[in-house]
Amino acid sequence: MLDVADPSTAALAEPFTRTLVRLLRAQDTHGAWDAKSDAEILKPFVVTREERRAMPIIGDPDPDVLWRIEMFYTAVGLQVESETGVMAGPMTKMSHEGFGRLILIAGKLIVLSRHLRDVHRFGFDDLSALATEGAKWVAKARAEIEAHPDVARA
Amino acid sequence: MLDVADPSTAALAEPFTRTLVRLLRAQDTHGAWDAKSDAEILKPFVVTREERRAMPIIGDPDPDVLWRIEMFYTAVGLQVESETGVMAGPMTKMSHEGFGRLILIAGKLIVLSRHLRDVHRFGFDDLSALATEGAKWVAKARAEIEAHPDVARA
Repeated sequence: MLDVADPSTAALAEPFTRTLVRLLRAQDTHGAWDAKSDAEILKPFVVTREERRAMPIIGDPDPDVLWRIEMFYTAVGLQVESETGVMAGPMTKMSHEGFGRLILIAGKLIVLSRHLRDVHRFGFDDLSALATEGAKWVAKARAEIEAHPDVARA
Repeated sequence: MLDVADPSTAALAEPFTRTLVRLLRAQDTHGAWDAKSDAEILKPFVVTREERRAMPIIGDPDPDVLWRIEMFYTAVGLQVESETGVMAGPMTKMSHEGFGRLILIAGKLIVLSRHLRDVHRFGFDDLSALATEGAKWVAKARAEIEAHPDVARA
């Protein structure tokens, strides 16, 4: 039953969240997630403050969390593309110690550059935070493309 | 004894080659290479046609070859910086299967983008080929910076 007053329900209707869910479902080639709701599929992206506190300060990022980071920023790129018509894709460089750099590339332009820390703790307080954060990076990348359209389309 | 008619000697005097040697020597924190000549230090970058033919077509790139690729393009970036005043650094994404992508970044501009294949076979026929190839990428990166100076200095 949908609770329209629930902020999570509103978050699931946001363009960025829908793009991320579409991307994740597209990876599910074996249909393992067919019976799962969108909220269930996004659940690993939610790490509450209590969960984060329970994690070690320094930790080896496992492949699953690296995959989620890749998916999150790939979804940012897809959403940028659907809003601007310019393709944008991520490239990451991660150390084994859990920090690294992520860039989102459109043509010859770096539309987003982030230094990532505590990668093993990657996640959002709740789905609203995920939607807000995603939309923020989409807006930032769009602004870069609008500032340098020739470089982004190169 | 220097043989000035030897193309390798001329190659060692090229700006790109000298930058690469300086970079490699700077990594040698234990002084293990102090007694080595520049040509000896660059030797692992030379892979003759015969050696390349003897290598398997598909191979896992070892950490040493990935390090040499990183050093080669870092030297391209350093040479770009010394010629333009704009810093440029590499970022690589490699698969375990030996292909990948390398970009050289200056500010928000991608000044060089290369899809790499057969990474395990990385090397140059001789030192002249290394110097020529390095100078070629430096020139390409410079041209990009000159075409989009505001983005490269962003």
